[in-house]
Amino acid sequence: MATHNISDSVIRRLPRYYRFLGDLHNAGISRISSRELSERMGLTASQIRQDLNCFGGFGQQGYGYNIDLLQAEIGQILGLDRPQNAVLLGAGNLGRALAQHIDFSRRGFHLIGVFDRKEALFGQVIRGLPVRDVATLDDFCRDNYPSVAIMCIPKEEAEPMVDQLVRLGVTGFWNFSHFDIAMKYPNVSVENVHFGDSLMTLSYRLHND
Amino acid sequence: MATHNISDSVIRRLPRYYRFLGDLHNAGISRISSRELSERMGLTASQIRQDLNCFGGFGQQGYGYNIDLLQAEIGQILGLDRPQNAVLLGAGNLGRALAQHIDFSRRGFHLIGVFDRKEALFGQVIRGLPVRDVATLDDFCRDNYPSVAIMCIPKEEAEPMVDQLVRLGVTGFWNFSHFDIAMKYPNVSVENVHFGDSLMTLSYRLHND
Repeated sequence: MATHNISDSVIRRLPRYYRFLGDLHNAGISRISSRELSERMGLTASQIRQDLNCFGGFGQQGYGYNIDLLQAEIGQILGLDRPQNAVLLGAGNLGRALAQHIDFSRRGFHLIGVFDRKEALFGQVIRGLPVRDVATLDDFCRDNYPSVAIMCIPKEEAEPMVDQLVRLGVTGFWNFSHFDIAMKYPNVSVENVHFGDSLMTLSYRLHND
Repeated sequence: MATHNISDSVIRRLPRYYRFLGDLHNAGISRISSRELSERMGLTASQIRQDLNCFGGFGQQGYGYNIDLLQAEIGQILGLDRPQNAVLLGAGNLGRALAQHIDFSRRGFHLIGVFDRKEALFGQVIRGLPVRDVATLDDFCRDNYPSVAIMCIPKEEAEPMVDQLVRLGVTGFWNFSHFDIAMKYPNVSVENVHFGDSLMTLSYRLHND
């Protein structure tokens, strides 16, 4: 399958296709035309055909898409069938909420460890995992090889922690801290979730749209 | 100031400029060239000049940008100086973490009310605000005119709640639910935060980059 040189905007639409197809499956629908799918998703039918053609296309002219097959294929492209081990750094309000709220296993990840530096939190159990002392992170990583870290610690603590994690073999970051990981490590994969930026963008739209 | 027809990608960079300029201010820096700023932000100098020219430009050839002035101007463009009243729907793990974690007033919003439908939560105080019964939402909105709602409720509860909020005059949504608000109400402003989509994008990058 030709998955090279896929544009960033196509990649960003793939999870949305995956979700929509899951909703259709749950609604008992097994087949859908690109026109119907486009109406439900607010895209044009030609956009959808173009996007899916990037990955080899999955439809048959006149028959529409087989929903389960298409979802499974997109899931494979996204790597959801090959989950990666992840550790959570920071068991404060946000880290705790994410650990409890997110269905990691359906999104391509296994959450295998939770770390904090606050002694009062050590041993507390979050979604079946004890909060561990971040001082034990080296040993844990050498035994369990996590490839991904979820950063829920303040910006000023993030840089040395990222240095340590990269040294320990972590190659992907789900980054809620404001430290700019990709600037320092251009070869690791980073997804930033900047709540503040998202709010300010909403503010702009409210004042200008 | 010409703020029409600004591309989505420029708008998305504005909050990042705002943050970076704040960091520079905090580091005691008062003036910066587009070249220096570009190196710190991982953009090209010409990109930065182009972006800021969309809004009339703020630099003087050869003198660089005045950091405080530029940050204040971008803050105004983002509307941060004219904060809007916001209500939070859903005081579960995620809603609670956001209320406690986010500095709304620095991002253009005042959080003025927190609502849930679980009786056990009524009266609990989150960052100075009592959790209110969602049955009292109509009265609260008629008295306090919030223009923004933060949606931290499950997808299946979101649609009727959005209908009600739009009827009550809400024109902006910070949406953590998976309900597609913009599809149903194309004229309201929506910022979606889809944790699942973000994770799946990270998964794609880990498997394909």
